[in-house]
Amino acid sequence: MNLIASPPAALNVGLDSFNLSITGNGGASLQLDWQPPGNADPALAWQLARLAPDRGDPAAVGSRMDAANATACERIIAARPMLTDVMPRADAVWPEMKNERILLHAGAPVAWEAMCGPMHGAMIGAVLYEGWAATPDAARAMLERGEVRFAQCHDFRAVGPMTGIISASMPVFVVDNPSSGNRAYTNLNEGIGKCLRFGANSPDVLARLKWFEAVLAPTLRAAVRQVDGGIDLKSIQAQALLMGDEVHSRNAAATALFFMQVATALAASDAPQKAVRESLEFISRTSQFFLNLSMVAAKAIMDAAHGIEYSSIVTATARNGTTTALRVSSLGAQWFEAPSDNPVGLFFPGFKQEDANPDLGDSAITETAGYGGFSLAASPALTLLVGGSVADANHYSRLMYEITTTKNPALSLPNLEFDGAPTGIDVRKVVDTGIRPVVTTGIAHKEAGIGQIGAGIVRVPMQCYVRALEALAARYAPAG
Amino acid sequence: MNLIASPPAALNVGLDSFNLSITGNGGASLQLDWQPPGNADPALAWQLARLAPDRGDPAAVGSRMDAANATACERIIAARPMLTDVMPRADAVWPEMKNERILLHAGAPVAWEAMCGPMHGAMIGAVLYEGWAATPDAARAMLERGEVRFAQCHDFRAVGPMTGIISASMPVFVVDNPSSGNRAYTNLNEGIGKCLRFGANSPDVLARLKWFEAVLAPTLRAAVRQVDGGIDLKSIQAQALLMGDEVHSRNAAATALFFMQVATALAASDAPQKAVRESLEFISRTSQFFLNLSMVAAKAIMDAAHGIEYSSIVTATARNGTTTALRVSSLGAQWFEAPSDNPVGLFFPGFKQEDANPDLGDSAITETAGYGGFSLAASPALTLLVGGSVADANHYSRLMYEITTTKNPALSLPNLEFDGAPTGIDVRKVVDTGIRPVVTTGIAHKEAGIGQIGAGIVRVPMQCYVRALEALAARYAPAG
Repeated sequence: MNLIASPPAALNVGLDSFNLSITGNGGASLQLDWQPPGNADPALAWQLARLAPDRGDPAAVGSRMDAANATACERIIAARPMLTDVMPRADAVWPEMKNERILLHAGAPVAWEAMCGPMHGAMIGAVLYEGWAATPDAARAMLERGEVRFAQCHDFRAVGPMTGIISASMPVFVVDNPSSGNRAYTNLNEGIGKCLRFGANSPDVLARLKWFEAVLAPTLRAAVRQVDGGIDLKSIQAQALLMGDEVHSRNAAATALFFMQVATALAASDAPQKAVRESLEFISRTSQFFLNLSMVAAKAIMDAAHGIEYSSIVTATARNGTTTALRVSSLGAQWFEAPSDNPVGLFFPGFKQEDANPDLGDSAITETAGYGGFSLAASPALTLLVGGSVADANHYSRLMYEITTTKNPALSLPNLEFDGAPTGIDVRKVVDTGIRPVVTTGIAHKEAGIGQIGAGIVRVPMQCYVRALEALAARYAPAG
Repeated sequence: MNLIASPPAALNVGLDSFNLSITGNGGASLQLDWQPPGNADPALAWQLARLAPDRGDPAAVGSRMDAANATACERIIAARPMLTDVMPRADAVWPEMKNERILLHAGAPVAWEAMCGPMHGAMIGAVLYEGWAATPDAARAMLERGEVRFAQCHDFRAVGPMTGIISASMPVFVVDNPSSGNRAYTNLNEGIGKCLRFGANSPDVLARLKWFEAVLAPTLRAAVRQVDGGIDLKSIQAQALLMGDEVHSRNAAATALFFMQVATALAASDAPQKAVRESLEFISRTSQFFLNLSMVAAKAIMDAAHGIEYSSIVTATARNGTTTALRVSSLGAQWFEAPSDNPVGLFFPGFKQEDANPDLGDSAITETAGYGGFSLAASPALTLLVGGSVADANHYSRLMYEITTTKNPALSLPNLEFDGAPTGIDVRKVVDTGIRPVVTTGIAHKEAGIGQIGAGIVRVPMQCYVRALEALAARYAPAG
C-alpha cells in the first residue's frame, strides 16, 4: 500500500511550462501569468485607480461600474436561450443578402489583404457554394476585386465558429432568449477535419453544405417545431458540464442530449424517413455538432448583458484569424483589438505547431459566457484532445474566478465541488491582475483550403483589455 | 488571490467519518478500513500465508493463483460484450419456464420466509403480471404455499437489478461476448421510484411491464437487428466513463450514447412510428435505462473469467436483500455468503435511513468488472445523488487498486489522470488488506410494495471473502 505524500504547492510567476513539473506530480501550482498592474504603464495604472470601486461612495465611477456589472451578471444568469427555429436560408433572416453579395465572417472587420489563409479559403468556398463564380481562381479574383461585401457575424446578431462564414443560402439556427427578449443566430456544424469553417473548400466540403440546405436543416426544423417553446440550450449546457464537456471544444454529451430531443421529436413528426435517417446518422457521428448551438446560446446570453451604461463586462470575444477583438457592455459596437496569439495544443498526424493559424473564430463567445476555458474543470476528457493534465484544467478554471464578477449557480463544475462557472469578465480585473482569459479552440491550418489540423488552448491578448480599459476611462472618468 | 496551502495528507485506520474533515478541506486521506490480516484469526492468517505467491517457485500454490488470475484478467480485458438481440419473452430463452412456474431473482438462494420486503413485493407483482393469481393476497398465498419455484438469475446466465425478478413473459436482452464465446441475459430497466425491481407492484408498475412486452422490446429488437454485429456495450461503457458515469448508479451518458445508436437504427427500420416514438420518449427520460445493459455487459465479461483453475478472482457479487454472496473463478457455482450491510446515502423526500432495506440486487456485478464503486472517480456528478465529495469519489477508486489484480486499459478514469479502472478483485488481497469493495447502489424501502427511496454507497461484507479464502485454501492448500 502506498501512502500519499503531501503534494507540492507552488505559486508561479514565470513560464507556464514550469507548472507542469508540479502538476504532473499531483501538486497544485497557481500560475499568475503576472504582469505589473496597469501593464507597467503609469497612465494606465492611474486609469485603473480611477475606475476602482469606492465602498463609501456609491456614486463613484468604480462603484457605478460594480452595480452595472451586477445587473449584467443578473441578466446573464437569468438568460434561457431556446432553439426556436431553423431558417432554411440566411437571406430569409437578412433580406439585404438577397440584393447584395454579402459574406458574414467571424471577428472584427478585416480587409481581404489582411485576412488569414483559412479565411481566404472559406470565402472562396462560400463564393463557389453560392454559385457566384465557377472556379476557385474566379472566386478569388471576385473577392480581390471587392465584389463581395464582408460583414461581421456579430453585427448581424450571429456567431460562427472559426472563419464563421454565413452566406445567403446557408440555413441558420434561430435562438430566442425570453428573459431579455433578444434573438441570436448561427450556422450548422460540419464536423471536424476538412470543413469550410476551417478554410477547406473542396467539392466534398461544398456538397455537405448543400446537403445541410436540402436535408439536415428542414429535418431539424421539423424537429424543433415539435417541441413546445423550443429546445432549452442552457439546460443542455448545464447537464453537459456534469458530463465531461466544457461545451466549446468538447460537446460529446451536449450533442447526445440534443440528439435525444431531436430524435424523439422527429419520431412524432412527418419528416421523411430517409431525411431523418441521414440527419440522425450525421449528428450521431459529429460530436461537435452542438458547438454552434453552444455558441449561439452564449451569444443570446451575452447580448442580454450588452448595452448597460457603466458596465465593464466583456460581452463578446471574437477572432478573425488576424486579430482578437472584444466588445464591452457599456461601449456599444466598438471592437478593442490586438493581434491574435497562436493556440498551443495537439495536432492531427502529419501536422505541427508551425502549421497553425493564429487564433480564429467567434467561438470565444462561449468563454465570454463562462463556458469553454472558463469551465475547463468540467472537462478532464478534453485534455486528451488539447494536452495538459486534469490538474491544469482545474487550475485554469480556478484562475478565471480572479477576473470575473460572479459564479453562475446554474452551471456547476463537479471537479470544483460543484462551484458555479466563472462568469462576467471584468475588463478592470483582467488588466489589474494581468491574468488573460483562457480559450479552448480548434486549430486551422494557416494555408487556405486545408482545414482543421488540431485543437488546443490560447490566451486572449492583454492589449485588448488595455484598450477597452482606456475607452472606459475616457468615457466615464476623463482626466479632469 | 488565494494561495493554495499545502493540503493535509493522512492515513486513517479509524472511523470513515474522520476522513471527511480532511478530504473536505482538499486534503488526501487514505482510509485503510483496516482489520488485522486474516481477520485476527490465526488459522486464517496461516491460510493467507499458504496462498501467497512465491516468486522463486512458480509451482507454489500462490504463484499458480497469480498466473491464473493473470489469465482471468486477460479474458476480462479482451471481453467485448455485444447486445445482439432482444428476446420478446424469457421462456423463449429458457423453455423450462413454459412448463413450470419459475421466478428468477437476484443474489443467492433464499427461502420465502427469509426474503426481504421488496423481494416479497416484487414476487407478488410478478405473479400478478403473469396472471398466476388475481390479487396480491392470492399471489402471496401461492408463493407461501411453495407453488412457484425460485431460482437465481446467475444460474440462468442472467443478472437483474435490485430484486432482479425475471418471469416467463418478460422480454430479455441478449448479450454475446465473441472473445470467449459466452452469452448473458438481463431484463429491461423501468426507471426510478415505483418499480417492480424495488418491490413495487401496483397496477401502473405492472402496466409498464406489459408495455415493455408489447411495445418497447419489439422496437428495441428491430433496432438491434439493424446494427451489424450488435451494439458494442463496452465501447459505450468506456465512453461513458469519460462522461461522468460510473455505469452503475449513474448512466446518463451511457443511456444517451445507447439512445443515439437505437434511434439511428430505428430510422433505418420499418418499426411502427407510434412504437418508435413511445420507446424513444421512454428511454430519453430514463437516465438509468442503460443500467441493466451495463450489468449484463459486466456479467458477460466476468463469465469469461469464470472457471479458471487456481484463480482467486471474484466473478460475481450478488445480493438477495438478505445476504451478499460471491462466486470465485476457480470455485464453480458455490456462493460465499454473509448478511448484507445497509447502504448509506441520500433519500428521496419523506424517506429516511431507517426505511432502507439491506443491500440488494445483482448490480454489484458491475463493481466485480471494475465499474461502479471501483470507477467512482469517473463520476463526480454521482456524489450529488449518493452523497460525499469528489475527493471521496477519487479516494474510493484509488483504494480499490489495493484489492485488484490489474488496471483495465480500455476503461480510463479521467480524474485519476486516465488510469485504468481497478480490475479483478483478488479474494486474498481483500482479506489481507481488510479493504472491502465499494458498491454504489439504489436503495429500496424495506417494506413490500413501496419501491426506491434513495441511492447510496455500501461495502461488501468481509465475511464473504473470508469464507471464499477458506474454500480456496481447502481446495488448493489443504492443511498437510
